[in-house]
Amino acid sequence: MTQSTMTTEQKEYFMREALKEAHKAQLLDEVPIGAVIVLDNQIIGRGHNVRELSQDATTHAELLAIKDANRQQKSWRLEDAQLFVTLEPCPMCSGAIILSRIKEVYYGAKDPKAGTVDSLMQLLSDSRFNHQSVVESGILENECSELLTSFFKELRKRKKKQKKD
Amino acid sequence: MTQSTMTTEQKEYFMREALKEAHKAQLLDEVPIGAVIVLDNQIIGRGHNVRELSQDATTHAELLAIKDANRQQKSWRLEDAQLFVTLEPCPMCSGAIILSRIKEVYYGAKDPKAGTVDSLMQLLSDSRFNHQSVVESGILENECSELLTSFFKELRKRKKKQKKD
Repeated sequence: MTQSTMTTEQKEYFMREALKEAHKAQLLDEVPIGAVIVLDNQIIGRGHNVRELSQDATTHAELLAIKDANRQQKSWRLEDAQLFVTLEPCPMCSGAIILSRIKEVYYGAKDPKAGTVDSLMQLLSDSRFNHQSVVESGILENECSELLTSFFKELRKRKKKQKKD
Repeated sequence: MTQSTMTTEQKEYFMREALKEAHKAQLLDEVPIGAVIVLDNQIIGRGHNVRELSQDATTHAELLAIKDANRQQKSWRLEDAQLFVTLEPCPMCSGAIILSRIKEVYYGAKDPKAGTVDSLMQLLSDSRFNHQSVVESGILENECSELLTSFFKELRKRKKKQKKD
């Protein structure tokens, strides 16, 4: 497994772009998770979670960003690309990363409930699959997790208010 | 974990429908894998692998069938549905099954290289995720695996011929 090809400045720059996507989800009352895909220092795919709006179980930030990058590249292969996502990927998104052969994966906050890059299992370094990615976690971790924490706090407050009304 | 709610006749009937989808993929020169999603004995979603045609890494049979069923149901939740697929699901598709909360999963042939329902790992019975499915394998296994074997045999023959020409 080779090492990251990005400087700290690059990593934080692109994670801020993923955070912008997460904010778009938040404005739609969706769980605020965002992702971007980068090739040669350019963003070639973007996505944010829209599960409720789309009523489509597959519309996670990473999956939409991968589809967007595939479209832009006219290729399902993203072998030289980097993915930046605010939250640790789930099994579906980890699987899509393997299938599209993304080279490097950077994420912000860990997901102890459904994360399958580090937390529950390590799908992206499992040598039984035909592709492995370089992984780095904790990029702008506080911003990424704070966005989620405040979203769920607000949601609980609203639900409590609804019950009282 | 509850048991299958389907008779052998129902299982084979719907797997034949998944095989019809796999044949559609074959006609497009795609790896012949097909899937259908069933609710109350009716097909509510269909899909076949079109990775090369679409140049989209996420266009596996199961993922397309789930998206189709979500659209038809106007809901990301498929909690009472059955999925039939000719080949054991990969991590991406296993993840999409968990996310859409499909109740029962029936597949034909095992995939020792990338299958994550039984072969490499057991994502659909892992109690750490917030959903588990009833799983049954080996439905019309011979037809499902024969379709794949003959596809790859034909592909190798063609490649050999191309080299000679």
